[in-house]
Amino acid sequence: MENVEALKAKISELENKVKLLTTKNAREKIETMSSEVVDSNPYSRLMALKRMGIVNNYENIRNFSVAIVGVGGVGSVTAEMLTRCGIGRLILFDYDKVELANMNRLFFQPHQSGLSKVEAAAETLKNINPDVDILTYNYNITSIENFDNFSNILRTGSLTNGPVDLVLSCVDNFEARFTINAVCNEFNLTWFESGVSENAVSGHVQFIVPGETACFACAPPLVVASNIDEKTLKRDGVCAASLPTTMGVIAGFLVQNALKYLLKFGNVSNYLGYSALTDFFPNMNLKPNPHCDDSNCQLRQREFAAKPKVQVVENKQESDTPVHEDNEWGISLVDESVENDKGAQNVASGVSLAYAVPDKDIGDVEVSKSDDTSLEELMAQMKAI
Amino acid sequence: MENVEALKAKISELENKVKLLTTKNAREKIETMSSEVVDSNPYSRLMALKRMGIVNNYENIRNFSVAIVGVGGVGSVTAEMLTRCGIGRLILFDYDKVELANMNRLFFQPHQSGLSKVEAAAETLKNINPDVDILTYNYNITSIENFDNFSNILRTGSLTNGPVDLVLSCVDNFEARFTINAVCNEFNLTWFESGVSENAVSGHVQFIVPGETACFACAPPLVVASNIDEKTLKRDGVCAASLPTTMGVIAGFLVQNALKYLLKFGNVSNYLGYSALTDFFPNMNLKPNPHCDDSNCQLRQREFAAKPKVQVVENKQESDTPVHEDNEWGISLVDESVENDKGAQNVASGVSLAYAVPDKDIGDVEVSKSDDTSLEELMAQMKAI
Repeated sequence: MENVEALKAKISELENKVKLLTTKNAREKIETMSSEVVDSNPYSRLMALKRMGIVNNYENIRNFSVAIVGVGGVGSVTAEMLTRCGIGRLILFDYDKVELANMNRLFFQPHQSGLSKVEAAAETLKNINPDVDILTYNYNITSIENFDNFSNILRTGSLTNGPVDLVLSCVDNFEARFTINAVCNEFNLTWFESGVSENAVSGHVQFIVPGETACFACAPPLVVASNIDEKTLKRDGVCAASLPTTMGVIAGFLVQNALKYLLKFGNVSNYLGYSALTDFFPNMNLKPNPHCDDSNCQLRQREFAAKPKVQVVENKQESDTPVHEDNEWGISLVDESVENDKGAQNVASGVSLAYAVPDKDIGDVEVSKSDDTSLEELMAQMKAI
Repeated sequence: MENVEALKAKISELENKVKLLTTKNAREKIETMSSEVVDSNPYSRLMALKRMGIVNNYENIRNFSVAIVGVGGVGSVTAEMLTRCGIGRLILFDYDKVELANMNRLFFQPHQSGLSKVEAAAETLKNINPDVDILTYNYNITSIENFDNFSNILRTGSLTNGPVDLVLSCVDNFEARFTINAVCNEFNLTWFESGVSENAVSGHVQFIVPGETACFACAPPLVVASNIDEKTLKRDGVCAASLPTTMGVIAGFLVQNALKYLLKFGNVSNYLGYSALTDFFPNMNLKPNPHCDDSNCQLRQREFAAKPKVQVVENKQESDTPVHEDNEWGISLVDESVENDKGAQNVASGVSLAYAVPDKDIGDVEVSKSDDTSLEELMAQMKAI
């Protein structure tokens, strides 16, 4: 009998241990964001932004729903930042699995290898902040059978069943970016595009308000030049390089600008680049292309043109001025002192188009050697869509 | 008897569960860094930097030992980035405990509340990358009884018992920065200083090579101006604001420049600032002050002046030119196009001194209103050291 009691005691002890290990002592949900300065308040340093005069109503962050497409090196850190900021709802899309080869970037840990990225991310994020409502979709947004579901969720994913407040693109290919672009143009959704170069030492974020700023189809995508021979990239069976530093910086720029947009403080950058080798940060405004291939972009442009001028989105310096005849892509510099060596494009120094387009569309844009080299491959990829 | 067998089976099952939960399926150590492109290789994306022509010998990262002083919002992310990059050794200093109030920044998780920051960090980092040798010191580097141990570790902390290869300051107060500065000047250690403003929307990193660039005592610390009334800050019982975005960006800048320095690629920025409200990034070179209060700084300056000119450290544009008589702090702009509105200081636009110093030392430097306001408080803090 004593033996049985001892065994039962052992079981009870082990059960407690398992309970402790699985609950991880995560905190309880918090009903209302408080400014109280105590060690136990996870929101004290964020609510302090009000006292500092930076943000008027920080607690409004709980009203917003943000969709993150791609939960890799940039998207996972983006999700963690928004979770720690106490965003109302996060909607995560990805179809990849966590691998040890991802461990050179922040967020995922080796014991999560083999799990789906959205499942692993949701588990970590809920533990970090149980106040955030996290929804996950483990599928490829570019496949035809998922497209309707994807666009439905963006249209109804807010906390009041309206459209999500913001879409953040953290994907690694043009096909997914064009899918997001098409949905956002069709349903008039504001979004940010982001990207990191395959040599790991440059990246960018771009703010896209349909009809007001250039969409992803208005001009060839802009990439920050790294002065690296592009021929060394993109060979079959060769993986891209990546660094946790560059990805962390780009995620920081992305979420910082998302917070500025949602909580209405500071100036939201239209296009912000990062060149890690030289610590150079090109900053530009990009106007929509009246001849954009996406008819919904043209529709949004006409809607925006019909709006009274006083409704110009704040922080956009030149959005109500006409596009110059000699500047087809509508690219203009925010910092006039930045050298402009791209002629008609007016692209900031250090930034170049990711690929060239046929002559009839591109006008008198000069394309540099390295862009020429990768044109064929990129065009082939585009055609494969 | 059957009952006992059933209980024993239950115990065995629970013990397995506990084992599974505690080992976390973390990966085994890896003897040699490989470039092999397989999902199971955590270094494939880093070794790809060689193939991309960015870094010549990435695997050299295993030879370096980096000390991180302060494992808070910036230091913890800095440690995680270096760990994921596969640095040889990390030495962590902090004396604080994890609190729920830290959860608005990256890295620490709620279940770690109450643990010492260095202990909690080491546990997470070892799980992420068991190849990194992690040493932790849970004490305040500014207290007299710890000073000798602190400086001894910096002098003997390399993988060959020599001085550490780099010191990264991620502390949140001037006293700790001056302690690090004193040790690095005395023992000729290269380091980076970093900081984030109390209103959470600006920050900077500064590269300090004793004798070659300005040390932390050469001039009043430079901070990125945020155009926020400083009077709203620093009241008793009021906590500073912080954002995971700003801290993530500053940690990214810090580790990116540390990697450039250690692995000899790109240009290491001497002073790089970040103003989040406007996405503005001042970039400057800071020359040492021949009249620096720190006599070891003056000694290092004489040593550097005596070096043959060809030994000028790479990436320093003007380090061998004489300091101008009218530019006492030796501050010069990297980007000549950045507007200079600070007169004799030659400080980049948007950057200002953290506090003013008495007239006899400061010469004809103009001090702005907001700096005047905080001068008394800062001086009181300095005296309290």
